[in-house]
Amino acid sequence: MSLIVVGSVAYDGVETPHGKVDRMLGGAATYIALSAGYFTKVGIVAVVGDDFAQEDTDLLASRGFDLAGLERVAGGKTFFWAGKYSPDMNDRETLRTDLNVFADFNPKLPDGYRSEPYLFLGNIQPELQRHVREQMPTVKLTGGDTMNYWINDFRPQLLQTLKQWDFLLINDSEARLLSGEHNLRRAAAKIMDMGPHTLIIKRGEYGAILFRRNGHFIAPGYLLEEVFDPTGAGDSFAGGFIGYLAGKGVSPSDGDLDVAELRRAVIYGSVMGSFCCEKFGVDRFRSLTREEIEARYREFEACTAF
Amino acid sequence: MSLIVVGSVAYDGVETPHGKVDRMLGGAATYIALSAGYFTKVGIVAVVGDDFAQEDTDLLASRGFDLAGLERVAGGKTFFWAGKYSPDMNDRETLRTDLNVFADFNPKLPDGYRSEPYLFLGNIQPELQRHVREQMPTVKLTGGDTMNYWINDFRPQLLQTLKQWDFLLINDSEARLLSGEHNLRRAAAKIMDMGPHTLIIKRGEYGAILFRRNGHFIAPGYLLEEVFDPTGAGDSFAGGFIGYLAGKGVSPSDGDLDVAELRRAVIYGSVMGSFCCEKFGVDRFRSLTREEIEARYREFEACTAF
Repeated sequence: MSLIVVGSVAYDGVETPHGKVDRMLGGAATYIALSAGYFTKVGIVAVVGDDFAQEDTDLLASRGFDLAGLERVAGGKTFFWAGKYSPDMNDRETLRTDLNVFADFNPKLPDGYRSEPYLFLGNIQPELQRHVREQMPTVKLTGGDTMNYWINDFRPQLLQTLKQWDFLLINDSEARLLSGEHNLRRAAAKIMDMGPHTLIIKRGEYGAILFRRNGHFIAPGYLLEEVFDPTGAGDSFAGGFIGYLAGKGVSPSDGDLDVAELRRAVIYGSVMGSFCCEKFGVDRFRSLTREEIEARYREFEACTAF
Repeated sequence: MSLIVVGSVAYDGVETPHGKVDRMLGGAATYIALSAGYFTKVGIVAVVGDDFAQEDTDLLASRGFDLAGLERVAGGKTFFWAGKYSPDMNDRETLRTDLNVFADFNPKLPDGYRSEPYLFLGNIQPELQRHVREQMPTVKLTGGDTMNYWINDFRPQLLQTLKQWDFLLINDSEARLLSGEHNLRRAAAKIMDMGPHTLIIKRGEYGAILFRRNGHFIAPGYLLEEVFDPTGAGDSFAGGFIGYLAGKGVSPSDGDLDVAELRRAVIYGSVMGSFCCEKFGVDRFRSLTREEIEARYREFEACTAF
């Protein structure tokens, strides 16, 4: 094993202009793990109810994931979210959020996970993120995600948590909210003052920007012919980013990271996010091969070189 | 001379979160010419009133522009536009549009302009664009801009005009409106069926995409620390794009263009658009040097390589 992913495993109901699925496997940790799994070995820390289907456990197990940290609550129900996208799919409306067993999620790290080198903390309460991090004293690279709710209502806890992170991976509106700055360069400078030496700001279809103290890297988004369902694209980006770094064994040495590898990790993140949108939910990952990933990475090179 | 630019020369009133200017030099042809002037010789075809200030004529003349095509209407007033930007400067509200002498603009091409090799047709009535193009039978490269109003209300005329263009340079919402396709790859394919073999879709702060039949090139936007006034950024992009190609003498040979030069032209377009935003109106072009342009081009390379 190599990478520990903490976050939600859920069921989603999704409607886009291309169709509607009432209930399918979802959740941030699911997307992150499925995406990262193309690059590295993965252990999951999450909670589900006893309604969690065997075929979904089978899918995760089929990728060689360590599921010792996938807690099952007897008599409980798995987190359920339903949403509907706008015609251009740039906005979505949440129709339903049943936290169920996720409401009391208290990540339990199996002993075998504690000495792993890579940790990605999905979007959960910041204090829970911090407790996990503190149980992995020898971790080489830690980072994660957060969201508007924690930024607004749990700011002191979040700031405490961020101090221990190497990288933060959030979208542009979250970066603006966290920093209080509209301009992304100034927002990034303020956020790096909070702890993370590396900040990745996701911009949806427009790609992502990697910020470091000594410069930044702008990656455009891959131009898809058809977006079927954007659900999980950001988490798939995260999985590609951290998964690539874990697979390569990249870690801060002399207080610095290999910036060329970080840039490649951002491109792999974009590649994985783009694949995610090509089918509903996690479906694209059922058939996706490493060869297709490498082909799209090369296409990215061809479409951006000048 | 080398490049003929046709379009508006105007006065603008602009309010952004950084300040307010009641009246300053503006207009699409002004920005296009000032930007292109760093790369090639420029002749302007436009109309102004007798209120057009000597200092503004002097600025254009100081760049070596041929002003034989700058018509002055005695007793008339120069086109005036006023607008106010939203706090994030992604939207703007038009407060006033006084077409004045621009309402009857009928571009008159001086004899000396007719044999020039490069032509950029700014956003005016499509039939007027076509009449100019037809007066330049030996032109090597023609392209231009349009807007929602012409796409909606002058579609047959616009389609006739586009047949004679090598490239079209519009923003994403215009590309969607013109093609009836939301997806930009599909929109581009439809637009290239209308005539232009090259399409550049501008995406504001997110950069631009260059489409050709055999592939596309995605350029991210330059990340400014501060945007003072986005007015004219798209026209400055256009000026950098066509100015660079004209300066290099690029032209379709054997029915094709040098794609590497086209990509560089897009980056120069982004560079010029980014400089434009750094001060109000055309002010940044008063001090901008070719050395600063080259430095930013190299910065673009450094920020996007992987």
